Amino acid sequence: MALKMTSGELDEFIKRVFPQVAEDFTVEDVAPMEITVRLHVADRHLRPGGTVSGPSMFGLADVSVYLAIMAMIGPKALAVTTNSSLDFMRKPASGVDLISKCRLLKLGRVLAVGDVLLYSEGMAEPVARATMTYSIPPKD
Amino acid sequence: MALKMTSGELDEFIKRVFPQVAEDFTVEDVAPMEITVRLHVADRHLRPGGTVSGPSMFGLADVSVYLAIMAMIGPKALAVTTNSSLDFMRKPASGVDLISKCRLLKLGRVLAVGDVLLYSEGMAEPVARATMTYSIPPKD
Amino acid sequence: MALKMTSGELDEFIKRVFPQVAEDFTVEDVAPMEITVRLHVADRHLRPGGTVSGPSMFGLADVSVYLAIMAMIGPKALAVTTNSSLDFMRKPASGVDLISKCRLLKLGRVLAVGDVLLYSEGMAEPVARATMTYSIPPKD
Amino acid sequence: MALKMTSGELDEFIKRVFPQVAEDFTVEDVAPMEITVRLHVADRHLRPGGTVSGPSMFGLADVSVYLAIMAMIGPKALAVTTNSSLDFMRKPASGVDLISKCRLLKLGRVLAVGDVLLYSEGMAEPVARATMTYSIPPKD
Repeated sequence: MALKMTSGELDEFIKRVFPQVAEDFTVEDVAPMEITVRLHVADRHLRPGGTVSGPSMFGLADVSVYLAIMAMIGPKALAVTTNSSLDFMRKPASGVDLISKCRLLKLGRVLAVGDVLLYSEGMAEPVARATMTYSIPPKD
Repeated sequence: MALKMTSGELDEFIKRVFPQVAEDFTVEDVAPMEITVRLHVADRHLRPGGTVSGPSMFGLADVSVYLAIMAMIGPKALAVTTNSSLDFMRKPASGVDLISKCRLLKLGRVLAVGDVLLYSEGMAEPVARATMTYSIPPKD
Repeated sequence: MALKMTSGELDEFIKRVFPQVAEDFTVEDVAPMEITVRLHVADRHLRPGGTVSGPSMFGLADVSVYLAIMAMIGPKALAVTTNSSLDFMRKPASGVDLISKCRLLKLGRVLAVGDVLLYSEGMAEPVARATMTYSIPPKD
Repeated sequence: MALKMTSGELDEFIKRVFPQVAEDFTVEDVAPMEITVRLHVADRHLRPGGTVSGPSMFGLADVSVYLAIMAMIGPKALAVTTNSSLDFMRKPASGVDLISKCRLLKLGRVLAVGDVLLYSEGMAEPVARATMTYSIPPKD
């Protein structure tokens, strides 16, 4: 399967459909069924002690799977998350960005499943893992 | 098991340990192993179209289980989320708060499990469900 | 919403579509969006020490949500599990059956979500909780 | 980290602690933090139509994470599953074994998290994914 959107097009797309959070994220790399997304960690993403918050990690995982799907099917803002599971395994490092490595395990006609590992930049071991299921609206 | 904190004490506690998000949440009701928490929905919680965002729902579920645990064991800021699963079932109503009904299913020595249903205020059916597992640090 | 199948019809249905496991399960009670199912615990469901195995608990939760859906939409053997999450919270008692209390949280046109608590018969607190998502095939 | 058990020792271990299901599984390969396990698919693992059942897939994922942990910490039969999430993505092929590729994402002092992809032998794409959390009992 070929990509329908480049990383630049994905960045533009997210600015258009999620303007509130667009400046949080940059697509670092995209390939068929795979994407790498950076969360530019700022004060609003932190918990006391300087660690990235759970909702920020959820948000990064969620947007990564969403963009991985868009890259494959083209810009269709209506896909919605139906299910997610997350394991929080290590404390994120403070003062560095969070990097998401996402792989689509399934891209069906109506359901897509993406697997995500989240890394504090520069750490070898993931701070969290997530799986997200998206429901894709029918063609017309 | 008796409560160790009242709803007022929980509100104070969250102001102290999570000042960034304290104004988002109010404890509506607390009972042994149960809590009801309100998310005061504001622009920063919304997605385009006026629906509450996934990270905001995650955050409400997470804080609800956390506060339900604190109510039972007393204020110990160090409990951390280790695992979560969420099902997003209906689109939240726009222009209303989100209410979380949380029940602790297990409160062990080292692990606690809480179940949450999230409701748009005034809707009979839940918009989402969540389960959160917390790891509780040892006494000393 | 009204029931389309009685508990007796559900027992017959499972004998027809899942003959391998039909004798494991009895529908104890069914109501709109709710069902109670018994697992007749036998040696093949046990781990050393006499505790019910994880796969047996998974199977009971899964069949419970499936039958709760069938009770509402009528016998359509093709619904399939797409996602599940389970928390194992207490060791099941040995020598007693396992009882599942299931509630459908969503019964949509294409997706259904059911929540389950599993109890060792006679114990007040659940041994496990589970959520199952089913994909329902289109009408024709 | 070095392995504490070989694949042969793991096969012997499972025969000793899980005699009921030992003949179902063979360890194909083991490496630090990784394991490959085969489910020898037999009639008792099937649903009508010849597809592997959900409980059998759960069981394979669960035993894989368990054995991956044992391989790293040595034989300690008391580790227990506390949480699992599974996504069922494709129908397993009939007439072939199921192969599990498992990777430990975390091996902490008290909690371990393992990620699993399940493949029908000979198929390139996974039929299911699973994550399992184990609680590891303290040393003494």
